[in-house]
Amino acid sequence: MHELHTLDHARALRRVVELRPRAAVIVGGGYIGLEVAEALMHEGIATTVVTSPPAVLAPQLDTDMGERVVAYMRDQGIAVETGTRIECLTGADGRVTGVGCRVGDDDAEFPADVLGLGLGSVPEVRLAEAAGIPLGESGAVSIDDHMRTRVEGVWAAGDCAEAYHRISGRPVNFHLGTIANKQGRIAGINLGGGDEAFPGVLGTAITKVCDLEIGRTGLTEAAARDAGFDVIAENFDSTTTAGYWPTAEPMTMKVIADGANGRLLGAQIVGGSGAAKRIDAVAMALWNEMTVEAMVNVDLSYAPPFSGVWDPVLVAARKASDARAHH
Amino acid sequence: MHELHTLDHARALRRVVELRPRAAVIVGGGYIGLEVAEALMHEGIATTVVTSPPAVLAPQLDTDMGERVVAYMRDQGIAVETGTRIECLTGADGRVTGVGCRVGDDDAEFPADVLGLGLGSVPEVRLAEAAGIPLGESGAVSIDDHMRTRVEGVWAAGDCAEAYHRISGRPVNFHLGTIANKQGRIAGINLGGGDEAFPGVLGTAITKVCDLEIGRTGLTEAAARDAGFDVIAENFDSTTTAGYWPTAEPMTMKVIADGANGRLLGAQIVGGSGAAKRIDAVAMALWNEMTVEAMVNVDLSYAPPFSGVWDPVLVAARKASDARAHH
Repeated sequence: MHELHTLDHARALRRVVELRPRAAVIVGGGYIGLEVAEALMHEGIATTVVTSPPAVLAPQLDTDMGERVVAYMRDQGIAVETGTRIECLTGADGRVTGVGCRVGDDDAEFPADVLGLGLGSVPEVRLAEAAGIPLGESGAVSIDDHMRTRVEGVWAAGDCAEAYHRISGRPVNFHLGTIANKQGRIAGINLGGGDEAFPGVLGTAITKVCDLEIGRTGLTEAAARDAGFDVIAENFDSTTTAGYWPTAEPMTMKVIADGANGRLLGAQIVGGSGAAKRIDAVAMALWNEMTVEAMVNVDLSYAPPFSGVWDPVLVAARKASDARAHH
Repeated sequence: MHELHTLDHARALRRVVELRPRAAVIVGGGYIGLEVAEALMHEGIATTVVTSPPAVLAPQLDTDMGERVVAYMRDQGIAVETGTRIECLTGADGRVTGVGCRVGDDDAEFPADVLGLGLGSVPEVRLAEAAGIPLGESGAVSIDDHMRTRVEGVWAAGDCAEAYHRISGRPVNFHLGTIANKQGRIAGINLGGGDEAFPGVLGTAITKVCDLEIGRTGLTEAAARDAGFDVIAENFDSTTTAGYWPTAEPMTMKVIADGANGRLLGAQIVGGSGAAKRIDAVAMALWNEMTVEAMVNVDLSYAPPFSGVWDPVLVAARKASDARAHH
């Protein structure tokens, strides 16, 4: 049984891989679980990802987009069991031999020579709590836009600290290197006597599973509904190049907008080589509080090896704009 | 001698290629000249691009960025002769056998079994002129933001028509499929009784030469200086992935900003696989009239297969911001 948090955890897992186990079960369908599953599959180990949401990469992706990742992983030979509830670990001779789950109304057991736990992360706030530094509603250290905690002379930045979400308007606690680096720089400037504010986050993130690329920014459709928005959500199935180009691979872009005023709320991309980094163009639109209507005619680049003449970002925005007109 | 405008021109050139010529000269270092040079080189034909500016892809790229493309092309085995002035065609027996040039103070001759002319394009305005429809300062048909010419009941769109440049504030005439498609849609909406305005262009464009990708948007450093801006221009040499990732390839991003107020004016990217489409994130910032200072902390995506934790767009913006602080 292996946790998947530190470099030492990775080293321990590698030592086990060298013993040539036959079957691995990874509990957790997040970034880390998927990275480890890919690595084990490439080692020739029969690998199963077991996760409780209806698809992987929840809640970063909506279920419809996560299902595309699940389908791809299965094509690659990684078993994925979604909608499972872990009930027990099975074992013999003091060793774990599998995971017992509830899948719907049924019991299922997934045998494992190796068990990896990719169960997510929580902010490390023990020092803050011991020092009497207040936490915020996300459970992380509460800070202002200068990275000041609520205790004079104490700053916080990174995974232990909150960040202001520019779309939801709420404090959030995302464990991403991008946010930690930016907050660290801002904290350093202000600690050194400077005056710089951190403008907040969108939760932009990118990953890949084998050769499938995944990008996301802002609110998912589900999160936008939970936040009370009158949600427009449109998917556009396209390709990573012009459709006739020899290297074209499928790419789906999902755009989420506020039906009340057309404002972009978030986007997700799942597709082949070159798909995911396109999320940055949408993140830049989201940062600037653009409406999907305003996005339709933006002068984005085109050549056949890179996209159709109407970039998929523009078409997805147009679909959302059209859906809003008929909303 | 071959023009390079139409599909028939391409067919004629292909028939000549089938005769296995040894040496080709392409006059012109623009998009078309480079595409044809690449195709001929791949056919095993000794290919030379002859162009009068100091680098290829002028004026779409600044010279320093175009020189990177020249160096790459030479590495790929395409000869590139910049700063040349065509003086004459040489010939024998009624056939062209080469191009005579002035290179600096010297004469040079480049022998050619095949000569391709990629000399750029001009707007097709003969019909408009014959009909008395006024042209604008760019030489293309003058239109308003609804694609109306200055003659009641006549619309124009595409390569024959002008477009408003959002950064220079001037009418321009770029021959790009992106602009033509968007203008055509707007013209159609308005012809059909609708009311939609075209918000203008940035001149965003993308291309590739062999495996080198090139993207550009907005004003070049040279164009910004010509337009009277107090220009800040910074280059950032980076990689297409995290530096330690096995597929990392060099990527250079150039950012041009207005020293007076920090406003982004343009950007250029030259680099390996995955480099060029990143121009869209910068185009989106440019469209929204962002300053380089405001760009520094935008929440762009990161994972090692795609970029460093500080996306090169952010680092280039920070370099421009720092340069401005010391300007």
